[in-house]
Amino acid sequence: MFSKQTYCKRRDQLKTDVKSGILLFLGNDESGMNYADNTYHFRQDSTFLYFFGSDYAGLNAIIDIDENREIIFGDELTMDHIVWMGSQPTIKEKSEAVGIKETLPMAELKSYLATALTNGRKVHHLPPYRPEHQIKLLDLIQVHPNIAATNASYEFIQAIANQRNYKSQEEIVLIEDAVNITADMHLTAMRMARPGMKESEIAAAVQQVAIAAGGQLSFPVIATINGQTLHNHYHGNTLKSGDLFLLDCGAENSMHYAGDMSSTFPVDKTFTTRQKEIYQIALNAHEAAIDMLAPGVKFKDIHLKAGRTIAEGMKEMGFMKGDLDEAVRQGAHALFFQCGLGHMMGMDVHDMENLGEVYVGYNGEAKSTQFGLKSLRLGRELEENFVLTIEPGIYFIPELIDMWKAENRFSEFINYDKVEQYKNFGGCRNEEDFLITKDGARLLGKPIPKTIADVEAERI
Amino acid sequence: MFSKQTYCKRRDQLKTDVKSGILLFLGNDESGMNYADNTYHFRQDSTFLYFFGSDYAGLNAIIDIDENREIIFGDELTMDHIVWMGSQPTIKEKSEAVGIKETLPMAELKSYLATALTNGRKVHHLPPYRPEHQIKLLDLIQVHPNIAATNASYEFIQAIANQRNYKSQEEIVLIEDAVNITADMHLTAMRMARPGMKESEIAAAVQQVAIAAGGQLSFPVIATINGQTLHNHYHGNTLKSGDLFLLDCGAENSMHYAGDMSSTFPVDKTFTTRQKEIYQIALNAHEAAIDMLAPGVKFKDIHLKAGRTIAEGMKEMGFMKGDLDEAVRQGAHALFFQCGLGHMMGMDVHDMENLGEVYVGYNGEAKSTQFGLKSLRLGRELEENFVLTIEPGIYFIPELIDMWKAENRFSEFINYDKVEQYKNFGGCRNEEDFLITKDGARLLGKPIPKTIADVEAERI
Repeated sequence: MFSKQTYCKRRDQLKTDVKSGILLFLGNDESGMNYADNTYHFRQDSTFLYFFGSDYAGLNAIIDIDENREIIFGDELTMDHIVWMGSQPTIKEKSEAVGIKETLPMAELKSYLATALTNGRKVHHLPPYRPEHQIKLLDLIQVHPNIAATNASYEFIQAIANQRNYKSQEEIVLIEDAVNITADMHLTAMRMARPGMKESEIAAAVQQVAIAAGGQLSFPVIATINGQTLHNHYHGNTLKSGDLFLLDCGAENSMHYAGDMSSTFPVDKTFTTRQKEIYQIALNAHEAAIDMLAPGVKFKDIHLKAGRTIAEGMKEMGFMKGDLDEAVRQGAHALFFQCGLGHMMGMDVHDMENLGEVYVGYNGEAKSTQFGLKSLRLGRELEENFVLTIEPGIYFIPELIDMWKAENRFSEFINYDKVEQYKNFGGCRNEEDFLITKDGARLLGKPIPKTIADVEAERI
Repeated sequence: MFSKQTYCKRRDQLKTDVKSGILLFLGNDESGMNYADNTYHFRQDSTFLYFFGSDYAGLNAIIDIDENREIIFGDELTMDHIVWMGSQPTIKEKSEAVGIKETLPMAELKSYLATALTNGRKVHHLPPYRPEHQIKLLDLIQVHPNIAATNASYEFIQAIANQRNYKSQEEIVLIEDAVNITADMHLTAMRMARPGMKESEIAAAVQQVAIAAGGQLSFPVIATINGQTLHNHYHGNTLKSGDLFLLDCGAENSMHYAGDMSSTFPVDKTFTTRQKEIYQIALNAHEAAIDMLAPGVKFKDIHLKAGRTIAEGMKEMGFMKGDLDEAVRQGAHALFFQCGLGHMMGMDVHDMENLGEVYVGYNGEAKSTQFGLKSLRLGRELEENFVLTIEPGIYFIPELIDMWKAENRFSEFINYDKVEQYKNFGGCRNEEDFLITKDGARLLGKPIPKTIADVEAERI
């Protein structure tokens, strides 16, 4: 945990920013898998962790700005709980550790809020991302699940994003720790993968690295010979000679900071010629993007630069044709690069995605609706102490190719005959994590192989 | 998946048993961790899997007994979904694979149920164990979260338990497969554990075995030097010479059948004398319980026999005293054996715990409220093709000892001075999985070491 002062300072800043009303923080509960008591691993809400630090299920909190009160609501453990789950600090102890003096039993929260609402005061809440939050909002302040997202407080969201977007030195150390574990996950996979193995064996080995280090995965492992599916969570295939393997995985350390890296390597010891050619184009886009990272640059422009680099490479190979400025403007290159260049990263691997990407990644500016660009999670001008990923890729998605070809979409920019020849190529990307510095950017964590020569060297 | 006929037969039996009304089956959705799209691994609802086989998120189903219709409700994938998550069979294909001819878009489910309710027909639903189910019940049939559990249909629950309690030959093969993976998890831990390691390293290694085999954990790993906490999910301690290590873990295979075993071994290569003495008492109880397994025997009586065996051993060592019949009747031995002897196991590691233990494990008979016995999940008379665990243990829980001692509870049966000397002992148990056969029981899966000699042999 951070110091008591850190949490107090963060809460004070919130009070200053939101100005009035009651801020409601719903902590996460245990989440049942196939029955209530068979739970997934517990994950506290990141905003709750950021302002209240307490990594336990069954807590909620408020900051009553008008009356200058900060209260954690929770119930003490019974002996049954201690027998089954072990003992914990008391609610008082958990609260004092983060500078909160007032605690109340959970049952008091509803009446506290009811009184406030009766007195015409505003209760600020966040968009619920778990059904349990929807039920809490219904129960506590009678906000129906259907309207809970739109009823969320814009001022509250913005005030949180305005703090969490800027990583402190302490946070950067923790993020770098998670990225280093993440690098080890990738090195483990690069060294072990062999034809005949199951994808699940690789997925299991990289997960082992994260858990042995005392944390968890920061998101479900993508470990696949079908890298063209961007978030492929299926691990049932067997690796064959000639396949390209795409690994996208990350560790979350015990303080709940995330790492997120991707690597692509041949199942054989070397890339085939066609794998090299496509991989190199994606890598060129990756390097072009990194070169642009600096405060004051719009991330959307870096994304478009990466897209333009991919388009250039694909034109050179005969996949694309015509005026590339126009092709990229219209989004034709998104046949190969369907997703965004990167995203903010912090306690959440897509940092604060639950609060709304538009607020976090676009500072309120509207997102494009164009295929490809609409999946860009970060568009705003970069600032010092932002932490983000760079992850352009090239993907041949047979269903998408079939659809566009049938519609004759962008036929002035796409050479579908050539594309057909690569329909079973799969996909490739590299991904690294960066800190925006005063005058540029710094790679976080130890580098992993990304040039063709370095990747092949790791595979021997 | 099982054959189409298997699923049809199971549903036909349900219709026969429940007789009238509409049976509502809520499939599980993806479950967000720290934001909606960062999901835990998907786990389909076991009852949905049992009757509809389809292992995908976003499906619900009904069996309309009165009108003899069976319908799966779901929506086809969009291109965005295919780009990000890959393609899937169509709803029609998923449905035909399990003998369902009728499919409808999800939006139709609400109006289907509304019409039925308007016509005075009964909609049978199950107790919700995930908040998402609570919200679905509120939305679909206006059952408020506060009353959803009590509003659940007893006939529906009972009819499901009456099928799922009796494992078919095909199911037994799958359970045995999961138990064999589980045995490998234990052997991995027994062979690797050394002083200086972190608990998380052992937890990571056993999880790797389960995931590499293509499945998942059947429940969160217990891998701890504090075995006295029954469901200890903390993995942050370092193993020290002299510690006793308790591992309770299981694999869930790709067909979602569970294994569940426990083992206890010294962090050193051999047990200390006091570890041997306590461990042997727990093992005696374990063997005494196994000896009694047969159809027609009440599991509650087997539990009490295990308790009595523990009490005898603890009296011999001076922890207990007085009339043991009376001590066990009153529950004094539960100072050391606070939990149940075992539970039903199938697709859920505590099979159908979501439907209510009383229905599944007690056939409707009331459960005891006595400390210890109240945690026994299975009490009923055993029948052929039940699958269950045997897992007695001995635990020294400091907080519980302090409480009972302060209350002077059972002072005629407990020698607290002696207990104080073992307060930091920790805990131990073994656990194995059994099939009730025509005239006894059969151990499922390959055996793992449990005698002191065999465990020590594995540690060298």
